[in-house]
Amino acid sequence: MKLAIYGYGNLGKGVEYAVLQNPDATLTGIFTRRDPATVHPAGNIPVYPAKEILKHAGEFDVLIICGGSATDLPEMTPLLAQSFNVVDSFDTHANIPLHFDRVNLAATGGGHTALISGGWDPGMFSLARLYASAILPEGQDYTFWGRGVSQGHSDAIRRIDGVLDARQYTVPVPAAVEAVRAGKNPTLSTREKHTRECYVVAAPGADKARIEREIKEMPNYFADYDTTVTFISAEEMKQNHMGLPHGGSVIRTGKTGNGNRHVIEYSLKLDSNPEFTAGILVALARAVDRMNKRGRTGCLTIFDIAPADLSPLSPAELRKKML
Amino acid sequence: MKLAIYGYGNLGKGVEYAVLQNPDATLTGIFTRRDPATVHPAGNIPVYPAKEILKHAGEFDVLIICGGSATDLPEMTPLLAQSFNVVDSFDTHANIPLHFDRVNLAATGGGHTALISGGWDPGMFSLARLYASAILPEGQDYTFWGRGVSQGHSDAIRRIDGVLDARQYTVPVPAAVEAVRAGKNPTLSTREKHTRECYVVAAPGADKARIEREIKEMPNYFADYDTTVTFISAEEMKQNHMGLPHGGSVIRTGKTGNGNRHVIEYSLKLDSNPEFTAGILVALARAVDRMNKRGRTGCLTIFDIAPADLSPLSPAELRKKML
Repeated sequence: MKLAIYGYGNLGKGVEYAVLQNPDATLTGIFTRRDPATVHPAGNIPVYPAKEILKHAGEFDVLIICGGSATDLPEMTPLLAQSFNVVDSFDTHANIPLHFDRVNLAATGGGHTALISGGWDPGMFSLARLYASAILPEGQDYTFWGRGVSQGHSDAIRRIDGVLDARQYTVPVPAAVEAVRAGKNPTLSTREKHTRECYVVAAPGADKARIEREIKEMPNYFADYDTTVTFISAEEMKQNHMGLPHGGSVIRTGKTGNGNRHVIEYSLKLDSNPEFTAGILVALARAVDRMNKRGRTGCLTIFDIAPADLSPLSPAELRKKML
Repeated sequence: MKLAIYGYGNLGKGVEYAVLQNPDATLTGIFTRRDPATVHPAGNIPVYPAKEILKHAGEFDVLIICGGSATDLPEMTPLLAQSFNVVDSFDTHANIPLHFDRVNLAATGGGHTALISGGWDPGMFSLARLYASAILPEGQDYTFWGRGVSQGHSDAIRRIDGVLDARQYTVPVPAAVEAVRAGKNPTLSTREKHTRECYVVAAPGADKARIEREIKEMPNYFADYDTTVTFISAEEMKQNHMGLPHGGSVIRTGKTGNGNRHVIEYSLKLDSNPEFTAGILVALARAVDRMNKRGRTGCLTIFDIAPADLSPLSPAELRKKML
């Protein structure tokens, strides 16, 4: 299958690496809103201006859109799905139904296939929730995130006056995870599930006490959590906090028969959130390509993809080697 | 959906319980090769002789076949798939391709839909292997089973002269699991992955030293493992070893980009192997019913099932609540 990338930030770079690991995939181009001369792919891949993408119709089977969920994807995906098969990683959970409807209209009209909200949450964690609830109907789900960098929370700290740089780690509370794994079905408040660790580089002379107070009192982002703020130097930030690790667990506990208990857990420990997400997007692009060729158009999610369609192996090979 | 059960052992009983937890499912009958008068379902469900099943065509949408993989299912599933939509839990990994072909021929001829090898391994563990390898192509898979009762190994011990009863637990070696989770990609021999714990009730006056030796030297079953044999009383067996717990983990570790490491783990901890397996079979029956009504006939495996088809929720509800 021939793929193209639309947007070359951390996620786009991850997709470029992921294509190299999939022998059945080739990358025909990278589309960017920046000046193409300033974009330097890791490999020898042509870079085109985003606005000229319609000139490249027919050169690739699936376009992987690597934009942000706040403002990019709500515009980009419906627009591009009119002309191409597309995959995105839209992750604003509350707006998924609206995004789905808009993309579905666009893709159906053009006879294209679109997959939205690929990644690990939404994505693999959503699958873990669906499978576990279908096979263990009487039970309870818990999702824990981290330890990992939340880019949204890091950005929120950076917007505070006097902050030069910041990194925020979301950390599950170990006692809460253990209580869930032990099948105790605890009722957990937001504060009891996760803590937030903030590493902040302050401007020279900035009022650190005020910055710390503004972080800890920020509604939605930090006020409902036990938050720690550690001021560090720009050098320490560069040495110890440049990675984008993440992960977490989806755990479902439930009962069958006469009180037999079961625990299902799906967990991820990732050195690079964008590179891992990129691997999922490439596998989803494979399924989108196959489903489009079978005539299945419109918008899909990972819930609609038969697992076999994600794999480069044939159904017979899969049954022999993996079943 | 209307379901029926063919075979009423531990798994069949589990299916009866599982149907009660799925409000969209009803059980129309249990078919047994025993005298129906000797079979007592937990609920008020009619019991019919297995050989009269053709008289009940049209009374149910999907038949869940609860037989053994050694001799029952290779005969039963192809035969029954000629006349009914069926689900089985055939688990002899090496013979899956042959079983698939035979069931596919039978189901296709009759316009029916069959799903084979449902359960957790093959089944949910197979899915974990497929998803993880598709999204992390450069990596390595490990499957650990247990701590749990292996019925095949327990039966093998029971066939030894002088043994009245036996229970065999398969136990993963903790150091091996930890090395895999830590991403060390160890090369593990059979002996290094699992140990086998045997609890044996010997006949009065039996030669325990000989029984222990026969167990430990049994090829395929025990010779390649570190095996411990503990002789216990029939009373202790009844008190402490009547459950059928099981579980295990599928772990894939791999790399992306410039050496970033990732760990994906799917794990189960089950009080009752047959009851948990039954929950999976009922969810698979839901998908078989839907796919048959859409005209998809022939043999399927869990790899061919779009996850949404396992859930009683609509696609829109799933996107809103679980994605």
